Amino acid sequence: MASLMEDEVFRSFAKYAAIVTVKLLLMGPLTAYYRITRKVLAFANPEDAAAHSSKPEEKKQLVRTNEDVERARRCHQNDLESIVPFVLVGLLYALTGPDPAWALLHFRVFVCSRLVHTVAYVMALPQPSRGLSWAVGLMTTLSMAHTVIHTLYLFIVIS
Amino acid sequence: MASLMEDEVFRSFAKYAAIVTVKLLLMGPLTAYYRITRKVLAFANPEDAAAHSSKPEEKKQLVRTNEDVERARRCHQNDLESIVPFVLVGLLYALTGPDPAWALLHFRVFVCSRLVHTVAYVMALPQPSRGLSWAVGLMTTLSMAHTVIHTLYLFIVIS
Amino acid sequence: MASLMEDEVFRSFAKYAAIVTVKLLLMGPLTAYYRITRKVLAFANPEDAAAHSSKPEEKKQLVRTNEDVERARRCHQNDLESIVPFVLVGLLYALTGPDPAWALLHFRVFVCSRLVHTVAYVMALPQPSRGLSWAVGLMTTLSMAHTVIHTLYLFIVIS
Repeated sequence: MASLMEDEVFRSFAKYAAIVTVKLLLMGPLTAYYRITRKVLAFANPEDAAAHSSKPEEKKQLVRTNEDVERARRCHQNDLESIVPFVLVGLLYALTGPDPAWALLHFRVFVCSRLVHTVAYVMALPQPSRGLSWAVGLMTTLSMAHTVIHTLYLFIVIS
Repeated sequence: MASLMEDEVFRSFAKYAAIVTVKLLLMGPLTAYYRITRKVLAFANPEDAAAHSSKPEEKKQLVRTNEDVERARRCHQNDLESIVPFVLVGLLYALTGPDPAWALLHFRVFVCSRLVHTVAYVMALPQPSRGLSWAVGLMTTLSMAHTVIHTLYLFIVIS
Repeated sequence: MASLMEDEVFRSFAKYAAIVTVKLLLMGPLTAYYRITRKVLAFANPEDAAAHSSKPEEKKQLVRTNEDVERARRCHQNDLESIVPFVLVGLLYALTGPDPAWALLHFRVFVCSRLVHTVAYVMALPQPSRGLSWAVGLMTTLSMAHTVIHTLYLFIVIS
């Protein structure tokens, strides 16, 4: 293993980043599942509809939107907007040598907030469940970004 | 701090990557702000509308699109498509040991181009302000990607 | 060059990650090209339409959607959802010290699957060409994520 993995904080980061990225990736199959199993088939492309029907009239109708599909897609989009910045900022954060307990808290709070967010979004739970879990995740990432910028600023002042 | 952070170019990269990722993250709150403050409330989900009104008729009407909200969303999407590749490619670029002054120029030009792009997009400035700033950011990232591929190719030829 | 680049697997990763991220970035210019060259001009923003016409009536009509533009946009979106997680997970995977031949196989299969996916999407090839190439890419990334989580788990058990 590379020397980076000898660092405790970096190993924690790698584990939680891998878990939360798998969660992001699974939104793709979930959307595909909804496209096929909702009361109505709902495809985005004519060639996808063609694989389910050979009648031209029916093919056209199968290219449509469905509320459950759109909901999964919006959740996927929110994951892209939240989880990807977390992994990018978290990687830099893990390299600045933060306090291990404090870093672990950041990683765990973020992963939990995104699991709550996904359940709240896909099951359409009443607000503010989804809004709050989104805000907690955002705060966690911003806190890590602040540490990165602050640590690098201190580094310049000291040297 | 990890040994990576002892490298001058990597520290510059980490600082600019953190700044530009924070810019990306702030597009989320901006969209939420527009959803609530435009002349009309505009939500994407029924449960969000439910938190603002209990009348069924009104709830349905609150699920709609608004030009300012859509504009912030498109800007957010463009950030995802531009800033995320910059951070990914920039990380690999910083590890190939580029000339520090040249690397710093790449990072600064990119961050400036994205700030101009956001102002041009959100305030709907006349073209080609937005198109040019987008193209400059794209060129910067492609230039770094070229250096990564070229350096690794040279490495194989030498060894 | 940083010591990370002395690692054979990391160099392979860096090369393929740079190539596949360039492919992702080129979807932006492709969409812009379609916006301008399709039978009808199709812009997302009024200021873009204003750069092509000064008549208010015509400007309004130029803000519309076009099937080829939307297709390129959906392909771009799928790239964001697939390629970005690949680079994030692949980076962590390369740091866990995998078998070089096995790692190279993962990287090459992923890059090939995304090239096939793009051709299948943009040229609207009959299914299941696009679905299969998407699934192969997803499996590759999930396999790498599994290795990351498994290696870190073993690490904790051993130490």
